[in-house]
Parts: sequence; C-alpha cells; structure tokens
Amino acid sequence: MAKKHGLGFRPHFKTHQSASIGQWYKDFGVSGITVSSFRMAEYFAVAGWKDLLVAFPFSPPDLEYMVRLPADHTVSILVDSEEIFEVLQKIRRRVSFYIDVDTGYGRTGVRSDDPEQAERIIRCSRKNRNLDFAGFYCHAGHSYKAAGADGRREIHRKALSDLAILKQQFSDLHPRVLYGDTPNCSTQENFEGVDTITPGNFVFYDLFQWSVGSCREDEIAVAMACPVVSRYPGERKLLIHGGAVHFSKEELRLEGQVVFGRGVEGCAGTGLLFSGAGWSPMKEPVSLTEISQEHGIIRDCPPGFFDRVRIGDLLYLLPVHSCLTANLMGGYVTTEGQQIGMMPRPG
Amino acid sequence: MAKKHGLGFRPHFKTHQSASIGQWYKDFGVSGITVSSFRMAEYFAVAGWKDLLVAFPFSPPDLEYMVRLPADHTVSILVDSEEIFEVLQKIRRRVSFYIDVDTGYGRTGVRSDDPEQAERIIRCSRKNRNLDFAGFYCHAGHSYKAAGADGRREIHRKALSDLAILKQQFSDLHPRVLYGDTPNCSTQENFEGVDTITPGNFVFYDLFQWSVGSCREDEIAVAMACPVVSRYPGERKLLIHGGAVHFSKEELRLEGQVVFGRGVEGCAGTGLLFSGAGWSPMKEPVSLTEISQEHGIIRDCPPGFFDRVRIGDLLYLLPVHSCLTANLMGGYVTTEGQQIGMMPRPG
Repeated sequence: MAKKHGLGFRPHFKTHQSASIGQWYKDFGVSGITVSSFRMAEYFAVAGWKDLLVAFPFSPPDLEYMVRLPADHTVSILVDSEEIFEVLQKIRRRVSFYIDVDTGYGRTGVRSDDPEQAERIIRCSRKNRNLDFAGFYCHAGHSYKAAGADGRREIHRKALSDLAILKQQFSDLHPRVLYGDTPNCSTQENFEGVDTITPGNFVFYDLFQWSVGSCREDEIAVAMACPVVSRYPGERKLLIHGGAVHFSKEELRLEGQVVFGRGVEGCAGTGLLFSGAGWSPMKEPVSLTEISQEHGIIRDCPPGFFDRVRIGDLLYLLPVHSCLTANLMGGYVTTEGQQIGMMPRPG
Repeated sequence: MAKKHGLGFRPHFKTHQSASIGQWYKDFGVSGITVSSFRMAEYFAVAGWKDLLVAFPFSPPDLEYMVRLPADHTVSILVDSEEIFEVLQKIRRRVSFYIDVDTGYGRTGVRSDDPEQAERIIRCSRKNRNLDFAGFYCHAGHSYKAAGADGRREIHRKALSDLAILKQQFSDLHPRVLYGDTPNCSTQENFEGVDTITPGNFVFYDLFQWSVGSCREDEIAVAMACPVVSRYPGERKLLIHGGAVHFSKEELRLEGQVVFGRGVEGCAGTGLLFSGAGWSPMKEPVSLTEISQEHGIIRDCPPGFFDRVRIGDLLYLLPVHSCLTANLMGGYVTTEGQQIGMMPRPG
C-alpha cells in the first residue's frame, strides 16, 4: 500500500514486540520504525534499528531511557502539551518531535480545530535548539469503532482534510504528516497530504480487523494453540486451557454473540502445526464465547467437530486482538516449529 | 472466616502468584494451597509448599509436570470426565482426586443433578490403585454475576444443598467437600457440609469484589501506579500510561459508567508510596473510563484534583480484576518500597 501510494512506511512494532519478526521488515527495505515506549525503543535499538519514533506522548520517566540510546540514532517523539517542555528543555541530544493531532478520536493530541495550541507548542520548543519540529502525527483510532465502511471513510476523509489544513498553515516549517491505523491503511485508497503511514497490527491482523474488513479471515497470521482439557458430550461443550491470561478480555460481537476467539480448520487433534501447512477458516466455525482467568468454554460444537476432538488435542483459535494476546504470551512458535522470542517483561 | 466456621482453609494462589506473598500465609498456619496449573504447582513446590491442589481439570500435558513433583508431596487434582482416565491410568504416584461439581455455573464439572456421572468416574478410577477419591470440589463462579446479594445467597444455598446431597450419596467413601469463591466466602454465614474453603482473590480484593460487597473500598490491597503523561485543561482530561497491557480489558459498570480502574486519595504527585502510609478512597472519585493498549484516559476530573496533578506524577488506580492485573505486571512493590517477585512467564 505504501509503495502503491508513494508513501513513506514506518511500521508500528508494538503488535509483535519481537526482534526476530522485526528482521522480516528489513528484507522489505524498512529502516524507520514506530514503537509505543522508550523501553521498546531500547529493545529494538539493541536489535539494530537506528531510526525510532516513540509514538506515545513523551513523559518525564522517558528521559532516563532517552539518554541511553546511542547518539547516532535518530529519535523522534510525540508531544501534545506545552507543559512537557519543562522537561524537554533538559534534553541535550538532537530529537525530532511530532505534534500529536486529534481529529476526533478524543484520546490524545492537540485538537485539529485548535491550531493556536500547535503554534504555542512550536514556540515552546524553540527554547531548546536540540528540538526539531518534524510535523504532525495522527492516529485516527475512532475508525476502530466506526459504523461500517462509510463511517470509516468519513473519519478518514476528515482526518486527511484536518491534517492538510495544518500542513498548509505551518507550511513554512515543512511539516511531515504521519498517519495510519491498520483499518484505514488496509481499506482506504486516498492518502493525499500524508507523507508516511505507521500501521502495526497488519503484521498478524486478528478477528477484530477481519470484522471491520481490514483483512480476509485466511489472512490472520497468528492463532493460540489451546489444549482441550475436558469434553461434555451432553452439551457438546469443550473446556480449553485458554482464558483471560492468554486472550486478554477483549471481546467482539459476531453474529449476535460475544466472542473471545474463533477456531480454524485442520488443527484439532493434529498437534502443533509443524508441517508448515498453516490453517484455514472453518466451514462451521466454533467460537470461544466464555473465558475466565485460565478457562475457556466452547459451547454447542457442530456434532462432527465435537466427535473428532479428544482431550489433549490442541485447538487453534484466532484472537480478537492480536496485540494483547501476543503481549500476554511473550513468544511465538512458527508453523515450521521455530521458536520466536519477544521483548521481555519489565523487572 | 475459616476459623470462625471451623473450616479447613486451602487458599488459591493464582491471584498473587508470588512465593514471597505465599510466605505470609505460612505465618497464619496455612499448609495446603490451591493453584490453577501444574506449572504453578511446581513454582510453589520449589518455594516449600508440600500439599498442592491443582484446581483445573487434569489434562494430558499435566503428566510431565506431575512426575517432576517430589514423591513426598501431596498432590491433588480435579477431574470431571471419564475420558481423562485413559491418561490417569499411567500415573505411578499416589494422587488424590476431587470431582469437580457444577451446581449451576456451567463452566466445568459434573452436573450436580447427574450423580451417575460421579459414580462412573469413581468406578473408572479404581483401575489404578494410585488414585484416591478425595471428595467434591465446587467453584460457584456464577455468584460473580448474580443479581445482588439475594441472588448470591440463593446460588450459595443451592450449591451447599447440592453438595450435601452428593456427600450423603457417597458417604461410604467419606468424601470431603471443597468450596469457595471469594464473594461467597466473604459474605455468607452458613457453610454447612463444607469441609474446606479455597478462595484466592481476597488476598488483594479489587473493584469488582467491592462492587458485589465482598469488601470495603479501603480493603483493596493492590493498586497500579500509573504515570500521568499528558494533561488537557480544556476538558480536564488526563492521559496516563496505563492500558490493556496493565489492567487487561476487564470492565465494570459503576454508577452507569464503564470503568477499568479508580483512583485513590493521597497519591497523585507524591511519587511511590514508600512511606508505608498506604492509600484511602477518594471523596470525589476519578475513574479510568477508556483504555487502549498502553493509553488510559481519565475524563472530567474534579477541578481541584485536576489542578493539583502534574505531568510525571503517579496516579494510583484500583484495578477491576486484581488477578489479571497482577498476572500482567509480573511483580509488586510494597508501600514500604520492597520489591516482590512473581512466578515467571513461560518460555
């Protein structure tokens, strides 16, 4: 998509959090990345990445991490308040900053209808010559909750329009525009005014992304292998070891049902997928509809499926939110059986 | 409560998952514990616990862990199907098993209205002399979703009544009855027929437990310290570093609002609570009402509170579900500044 639209590409690495998976991007010519914390920036700097954007508003605890990053690394940060410059005045290394822009999501950022606030922030930054204003950053995350494709298109259109106005208003400073959540980058066709896209989740996708049309079900590239722990033939119910400590509590409403995961074809009973064959969508999908801390319940299994499954089999389930699931598991196994590590937990 | 009612006490350790915190229980005379996996059993065995109940239906992958537990340790397991005995026939160490009983929760267990299934399970177990039928285990987890105190009392009453009938039916085998989720153990007064209670969450409690009357707000013993990352004076909104990778996505409806955490008094701006003073409920509570992966948003702060808070301050927030929050964080700091470790992640 980035190539097709002539855009820069600075993928977000918070979904996979893995140096090994990061390596795959290098083969596609990626050199700059986006991360969600300075701890993550440090982890990927050790893995050889030299151009890092920390796309979470800068806060005082970040200072001690920032000074540890090698001086020849390009470090970019996000700001959305004047107050943070009390801390940023202390920075003694060259740092680019983007102004986080809120085009309606309402989470973080300077509101796009308040360019005076952007003006004040840029003025504050001039007190420290190490700070370079690089442009505007926007995560139009409300596209995740938009009502259908039309709603998402309108959110995208407004975001691009607001960013174009800002870019024009500050044109003497040659600001770059960074933009892009996975739903918009996967489905929209017009990126006028955008310089670089920064999606992350697309590396795996997940049930949520599939539900909003970002991907096909067979493009979801991560699944949880859950052992079947018990079978209840009277109700065709299965207990799996797969709960909130594996899937988080992210839920999705699918066909009138709350779902925490969804089975894939060709895995039950076959053990770990070490053939490299991968999986495919089920003709009669089974859904994980109840989870507690460690338990997962699959109710009303299709009879053929239920009869085939044995206690001890592994069921493969697509997660609702791959970022949270990966973060909980702390590692991966590929379908070829290769173990892939992730950034360790703090402490 | 256990002492008051003359009950055995086998606390569940899945909430804290910490050898150091486990030590505190020893000072109260606790010798047998409940855990949710064999990996956890192994961790606590290393920490010196010799009487372990794994309160998750036994499944084939558990075998390799079980053989590693020292032979002089008392190991109890949960079963709820005949099928699992294909695996349990292989066990060459003495193991007690409890039959998991479902009195209406609908998650796991033999339905209490199906004593023939319990009979069949006991018959299966006789093929291996290493297996001792120890009694019945019941987690009446539907009390978590009951409609008010009356609803919970009725769930508790039915569970006790069903368990008493089973105990009577199998009286020649002298079964023991293990029972007890935190809401019931914290609020009910009658435990007739129960031998041992097994609650776990009470070690910390949390907002959910408070919302159902298990505890007072000032009895919640764990909070998340979240740095304030940005302030939005126009809306009295705060951005904190505290999202789904810290709180999970467990939500609670409080006063008509979806809440993921709730602030406590006397902490904002004071840094880590290393005075031993602890915290107290806020007079005008602030609630964490929106979270994404790393971001947390607190809207409509009371003016006095908002004016006092600075970027970089730590806000202390009570979690909705302390088990999931602790599992995500992987460690604790006491109000005296002591670091407390937890069971490491797998892999």
